[in-house]
Formats: sequence, C-alpha cells, structure tokens
Amino acid sequence: MPLKEATVAVLGATGAVGEQILRNLEKRSFPVKELRPLASARSAGKTVRFKGEAVTVQEAKPEAFEGVDIALFSAGGGISEKFAPEAVKRGAVVIDNTNAFRMNPDVPLIVPEVNGDQIKNHQGIIANPNCSTIQMVVALKPLYDRYGFDRVIVSTYQAVSGSGAQAMEELSEQTRASLENREVKKEIMPVGKLDKHYQIAFNTLPQCDVAQDNGFTLEEMKMVRETKKIFGNEQIGVTATCVRVPVQRGHSESVYVELEKEFDLEEVRQALRDADGVILEDDIQNQVYPTPLDSVGRDEVFVGRVRKDIAHPRGLNLWVVADNLLKGAATNAVQIAERLVQA
Amino acid sequence: MPLKEATVAVLGATGAVGEQILRNLEKRSFPVKELRPLASARSAGKTVRFKGEAVTVQEAKPEAFEGVDIALFSAGGGISEKFAPEAVKRGAVVIDNTNAFRMNPDVPLIVPEVNGDQIKNHQGIIANPNCSTIQMVVALKPLYDRYGFDRVIVSTYQAVSGSGAQAMEELSEQTRASLENREVKKEIMPVGKLDKHYQIAFNTLPQCDVAQDNGFTLEEMKMVRETKKIFGNEQIGVTATCVRVPVQRGHSESVYVELEKEFDLEEVRQALRDADGVILEDDIQNQVYPTPLDSVGRDEVFVGRVRKDIAHPRGLNLWVVADNLLKGAATNAVQIAERLVQA
Repeated sequence: MPLKEATVAVLGATGAVGEQILRNLEKRSFPVKELRPLASARSAGKTVRFKGEAVTVQEAKPEAFEGVDIALFSAGGGISEKFAPEAVKRGAVVIDNTNAFRMNPDVPLIVPEVNGDQIKNHQGIIANPNCSTIQMVVALKPLYDRYGFDRVIVSTYQAVSGSGAQAMEELSEQTRASLENREVKKEIMPVGKLDKHYQIAFNTLPQCDVAQDNGFTLEEMKMVRETKKIFGNEQIGVTATCVRVPVQRGHSESVYVELEKEFDLEEVRQALRDADGVILEDDIQNQVYPTPLDSVGRDEVFVGRVRKDIAHPRGLNLWVVADNLLKGAATNAVQIAERLVQA
Repeated sequence: MPLKEATVAVLGATGAVGEQILRNLEKRSFPVKELRPLASARSAGKTVRFKGEAVTVQEAKPEAFEGVDIALFSAGGGISEKFAPEAVKRGAVVIDNTNAFRMNPDVPLIVPEVNGDQIKNHQGIIANPNCSTIQMVVALKPLYDRYGFDRVIVSTYQAVSGSGAQAMEELSEQTRASLENREVKKEIMPVGKLDKHYQIAFNTLPQCDVAQDNGFTLEEMKMVRETKKIFGNEQIGVTATCVRVPVQRGHSESVYVELEKEFDLEEVRQALRDADGVILEDDIQNQVYPTPLDSVGRDEVFVGRVRKDIAHPRGLNLWVVADNLLKGAATNAVQIAERLVQA
C-alpha cells in the first residue's frame, strides 16, 4: 500500500523514548516529509540526528504544531495534557506514550497486532499502552482468539530504562560503587518523585510506580485496566506484581493464563509462531528461551518456557520478553503512525 | 530446655553453604562438643575458622564419621549418596542439604516452622528442602493452617549464590566487564554442567536447573514436589517459574495463592505477623517491603506486598524474600539440628 508523506512532530525528542522514535522512523523508512523535534525550553536549540542530518530541536509551544500531521508524544503526562489539545486543534493526530489519556473512553488504546482496527475511532488522540502491558497482550492475543481467557496472573522483571535515562545511569553508578565497596548513592529508584530510594544494583524492588489505595501500584493497575480495554472485555481479570530488576533494557514477564478451553501444547506453540509480532523461542531441552539482553534493539515480542500447568488442565505458563523502549514504547507508537499513513 | 552437647561434622565445610553453617552454629550457640569439618581430598588440610580457632579440614571418608552425632551435608547430591549411609551406619543423624534424599519416603523433608513434628520419624537421614521451597512454605504455613489452599502459582527471582561461590564471582566479573565494555565471559550460568552459558549480568535467565521431560526445570519441579511433601498434602497444586536474576544473595518470590476460605486482609497480615520465622514488612503506602539486599545475613523469611486479587475473591498475592544461604540452606539445617539436641 502506498504511504502518504507526513509532517511528524516528536515531543520529548531528546529523551530515552524520543531518541528511539527517531531511530525507528529511520529504520522503518517512515515517509517523513518534515521532522519537527520538540522539547522543553531547556532543550530547545540542541540538535538531534535524523537520516544523517542534524535537526534543531524547537521549544514545544502550541504554534509548533501548525502543519503537523502526526505528533508522537513522550515527554510525561503533564506535558501531554497541556499540548495534545493544542496539536489536535491544529489538525494533528497525537500518538501519546504517557498515561494521560489511556483510560479516556474517547481515546483508543492501541497495540496494532491486537486491536489495530480501533485506530479509526480516534478523535485526534491515540494512546500507546504501558510497556509491560504491550508485550503481554501481544503474546496473549493468539491465545485469546483461539481459546479465550478471563484470568491472567503476571509477575514482571522490569528494566530500569522504564524510569528513563537517569535511572539507567543510576544502575551503572550503583553497580560500580558496589563492586568497588564505595558508598552506594540512592536517588531515583524505585520512583524518582517519592521520598524513599533504594539500591537497585544487585537487588530487586517490588515497586514500579506509586501506590494506589487498593495496595497495588499504579504500574500493576495499568496492566489490569489496559488489558481489559485493549481486548475490549471487562471480564478479563488480571492480577499483577510489578518488580524492578537490575537490568538496563528489556522487560521479562512470567505470565500465567487460565484458558477457557482445554488446549494442546503444540497447537499453542503453533498459534504463537503464527502470531503477528511474536517470535517463539521455546526449547528448554536445548536451553532456548528469550532473555532481555537478547531482546535489545528488536521490535518483536519473544515468548518461551511455554508449559502446561501440571495442576490445572487449562493453565498455561509463558515467559514473555521485549525491549521496553522499542515494542514497549517507540516501535508501538511508530507502528500506529504507519497505520495512520496507510489509511 | 537444656541442650545436649553433640559432635558435629560439616561435610562441604569449605563451600558457600558450609561456611554459613559454621557461622550459624556459632551465632546460635549450638552446643558443639567437637566440630569436624570435612571436604574432598583436594580441600583436606585447609583450615576453617570456628569460635575463634582454626580447625583443620579432614578428608571425607567413611571413618571420618566415627563418633559423630550430627552430620550436616552440603557437598552435592553424589557425595551425599555416597557418605550418608556410612555416617548413619556409624550412628550419626545426617541433615542433608542436597536433592539426593528429599523425595525418599523414608526421609522426612523438614522446615521446622512447618513440619518440625516429623523430625522424630527419621531413620538416620533428614532432608533440608530446596532454598526456594523453604521460604515459600514458611510464608504459606500460617495461611494453610487458617484458610487452607490447594493452588499456588509462584515466580521466583533467584540469586546466583544458589549456584555457589563461583557463580557469585562470575556475576561480579561479568558486571565489571560489561561496565568497562570488555568481552563478557560466560562459563557457569545458568547451569554449570550444561553446554550453553548465558550472561547473567544485567540480564534475567528463566532457567535455574536442568530441564525435565515435562518442560519444567528441576528447580521448578522441586518446588512442586517438596511443597506437597512438606504440607503432607498431595492435593496442593503448585506451578512454578524459576528465574535467575543478577543478585548475589537473597531470593525473592512473587507468590499467588488461592485460599479455600474467603479472608480479611488484616487477618491475613496478623496471621503472618504471628507466624514463627516470618517478619511482615508490608506498607506499600510508605514504601515498606522486603528486598533481597536487606535479607542478607538474616535468618527469617520476610513478607510484603500482601494484596487481595481484585479479580478473584480468594486470591492472595505475597512478595516473599529470604537469604537463600541462611533460611534457604544453613539456618534451616542448623534449626533441624537444634531440634535433634532438644529431643
């Protein structure tokens, strides 16, 4: 299908996800007529690299969206709330990577492999789900279609890059300090804006976002609510435990799903092999399974350790891995943009 | 209760767990009449430190168990199979840390807080469960007594020290190499004796032991089988995903349990607070929860993130952490020995 050229704004162009969006637009040969990198006043005037050229970052202001067709936002929820209406008013379609609009009933929450058909319902804003949700629903989609389910139990092993470039630097510096028996400084993890900070180097932290009143964290509740919305089925019950691990990039998930129909394990594997956006790496006898390190720089979702629960005839275990900065953020956003220019 | 003095042999005294057994015997003021550290011929003649003195390591031979009352074994399954009968023949009670006898119906598999009453049934050998099983059953015991359950879904975050001192050195060295952009050598993890080795530094590996025919790993099947045996209930269904993470010491577990009765969350917390060997650290609103780094050097099992599944009225989530070298191995073994000298 021929693609229409588009003027593309990237808000948060100097951040960890913004950088990956630029690389993805290049790699996937997105038909960019004009690239407009935007950021806060502090970053305006810097340059970003795009298709071999240095492009100057402009300050994000309402007027900066004049003439923009597609605006990819990843500069934080508050910035999205402020600028998305301004961009839409000027005719842009906003693909928002933040939590600002995800549960808004007027905003489609899109993972192209799962519910790409709902892109057409947008009213100017399309939301990109949370990283940990995206990789899980891509892996579950072929099972949902074939067997159905209404119960998912997931435990995550999340990389620090989900908290941004500063968190990655903190993990490196804490690790160096620990190996050299120097004092380990704790300033960011588990949640930068909260009071208490704990060492992530050589440790695990069972908190990936602020606490909610029900005792779950916001990250855990994102997985609960977004999964229902993406599958369009409020009956799907998800219970999540979200944990940060000392990994720079690549989220892993131990996913348990209770299917509605009995299943043959080989058929499940074939459904995963055939699924859009999934790569099956599943042969424990030969030590074949995905790991976060191997997922870095890849756009797909990797699935391994496919096992039938020996204690429940319809229980299925999966190990799901993806690059949280790519399929968990930048790749998914650019894939949504591709659907828009195909329309 | 007055304790009887005992001659104590420690087989594998120079290993990671053996060292912790010596420290635990000291710390808990175990009534040691004579300490006899044993190891392979290669390590014989070395000395270990005990109560301020250097004690010479003897070669493990059948005769070395003459006059021994209690023999603590942690030198690998093959060594246990060879020497446990010899020690028993000479009148010792063997407390074995390996997988060699755990599922033997004549051998009690003991976690003192859970089934300490079964110690008396031993016929010379008592087995110490796998590290990942021990901490889970200690946390589940008060819930089993009060509410009952027959279904557990667990995902682990296991420290490399479970694979021994060399694995800990590998994690440190790989981490240094990765930070310095040097080549990362892969020689031990995930399973030393298997063909393929993967980087554990800044990575997760969903394999903690060799594969079984059913697609689970041996580590996962240990959790399944041992949990049934310790609770004495074959109806308990466990499904486990065991994952190695770049942590030196301290295992974490995301445990989901479906209780038989409905429960009040505050009552669950109180039951955990009151439980033998458990420390409840559960206040997510104030960022209070256990982490492996904080568990190092502690004998207890730490529980936090206690939450009711919002999708299932009898579903309960727990985050369970313990020092795998202590409660997961050395402490549990010494606690069993304490019961023997109290008898």
